[in-house]
Amino acid sequence: MCVPGCQEVLRRTLTRRGFVGAGAAASVAAAMAPGPAQAQAPRGFKRIVDLTHTLSPEFPTFFGGPGIELQRQFDLERDGFNLNWWRLIEHAGTHFDAPLHFSAKGGAVESFAPDTLVVPLAVVDIRARAAKNPDYLLSRQDLLDWEKKHRRLPNGCCVAMLSGWGAYVTDEAKYTGRRDGVLHFPGFSSEAAQWLVGERKVWGLAVDTLSLDHGPSKDFAVHRIWLGSGRWGLESVANLHELPATGATLMVGVAKVAGATGAPARLFAFV
Amino acid sequence: MCVPGCQEVLRRTLTRRGFVGAGAAASVAAAMAPGPAQAQAPRGFKRIVDLTHTLSPEFPTFFGGPGIELQRQFDLERDGFNLNWWRLIEHAGTHFDAPLHFSAKGGAVESFAPDTLVVPLAVVDIRARAAKNPDYLLSRQDLLDWEKKHRRLPNGCCVAMLSGWGAYVTDEAKYTGRRDGVLHFPGFSSEAAQWLVGERKVWGLAVDTLSLDHGPSKDFAVHRIWLGSGRWGLESVANLHELPATGATLMVGVAKVAGATGAPARLFAFV
Repeated sequence: MCVPGCQEVLRRTLTRRGFVGAGAAASVAAAMAPGPAQAQAPRGFKRIVDLTHTLSPEFPTFFGGPGIELQRQFDLERDGFNLNWWRLIEHAGTHFDAPLHFSAKGGAVESFAPDTLVVPLAVVDIRARAAKNPDYLLSRQDLLDWEKKHRRLPNGCCVAMLSGWGAYVTDEAKYTGRRDGVLHFPGFSSEAAQWLVGERKVWGLAVDTLSLDHGPSKDFAVHRIWLGSGRWGLESVANLHELPATGATLMVGVAKVAGATGAPARLFAFV
Repeated sequence: MCVPGCQEVLRRTLTRRGFVGAGAAASVAAAMAPGPAQAQAPRGFKRIVDLTHTLSPEFPTFFGGPGIELQRQFDLERDGFNLNWWRLIEHAGTHFDAPLHFSAKGGAVESFAPDTLVVPLAVVDIRARAAKNPDYLLSRQDLLDWEKKHRRLPNGCCVAMLSGWGAYVTDEAKYTGRRDGVLHFPGFSSEAAQWLVGERKVWGLAVDTLSLDHGPSKDFAVHRIWLGSGRWGLESVANLHELPATGATLMVGVAKVAGATGAPARLFAFV
């Protein structure tokens, strides 16, 4: 059965025959598979928003060092073509978190099928609260308030936190909030993550900050709950402020690398 | 003006307000911008095909060594989470070729806007010819034959060569065809590439082999013509045999790394 509003949201996004999970994602996929009634013809879209920051050695990272280094191995004048080798932290820039990042037997990035990576996107705007408190935790109440305005979160969606931090990526001090070894930026609360795992059918969490957990977190509780449940995350997402709260479709173009716990992802939103 | 058949093809794919190029792609974008008559409401799609091979150290490469190495820097038991560093050749696995790869001032991977990376896909099946001649060059005549069957190549499309080599990725000797230091696999002819640059409006070339040029090429003529013109390429594309010759939409989820000449790409086809 489709809850009130659900069919309409799905109709506005994608035709999806149902989630086809792979590897560790299979059990989550089975639990979230929408029924035939939800496999509707999609409506079109009018624009594509790039939700991806450009990664460079200057892009802020959780640990402070460069997230990527490019080494020119072949040079056009000398060799006839240009080619670099990268040294890359697989969790740098706009990137994907796989269950394996925080669980011993969780799926790696290549275990997610396309049907689990093209999903409805719900944007929860906490900018006003985060402006007053940089350590703000997105709460279950914030999600309930969102549903009161926009109907129930659509099955198989990604829930994105719009904190406003995406505007700070060129200012390392502001983006990380690093003071005395502690970071400061907003994140999901573990209560909200737990509620989404238990009470809604959601594939992904996304944040416009460095981490699903807020900056001061020491236990990475949200990472443990969310990735441990077989779901995926997205961090350092760009341009969420350009999207409507509901109605966009997210395409997660995550690099398909065997055994990776995370990977750079090109994110497009179809509005 | 829209040429015969063009409107229909565009209607079957995407609403596109027009190409919005960035950096080196801007001039190509301007030349290929479809008029208002072509910005039609799209039809939907019924399935998503993953055109991406999983990259691992065993995946065949042009130079023979591993295209990626993962180094475990943090371990769940020891550190509380898993995380790797990658050493990656930016042209390994299913990947994107940027103009900078073969031109001194060409655009890098981050210079392409989303509108230039979500495009109609035309699949040219040369499997029968390639089975007889592994060095087969896709010709202008092959493209003309395709157009005779399927109407003119849609503006702003990607033209993909389906040689059948995608089935060989687990067999390094067969995929590379390496013998006495010379590789053997099919590719585009320089004549076909030149004709597409001059006579059609095409954003990308894609191949299910290691290179846009065929294996024995010494001058990389197609790379020079195509990338030198400001257009992009895709190599080691998977599952092209699952697609119709026309009507699919390609989404190029290329990692957005500053200054890169190429990058891993997650490719989805919407059919």
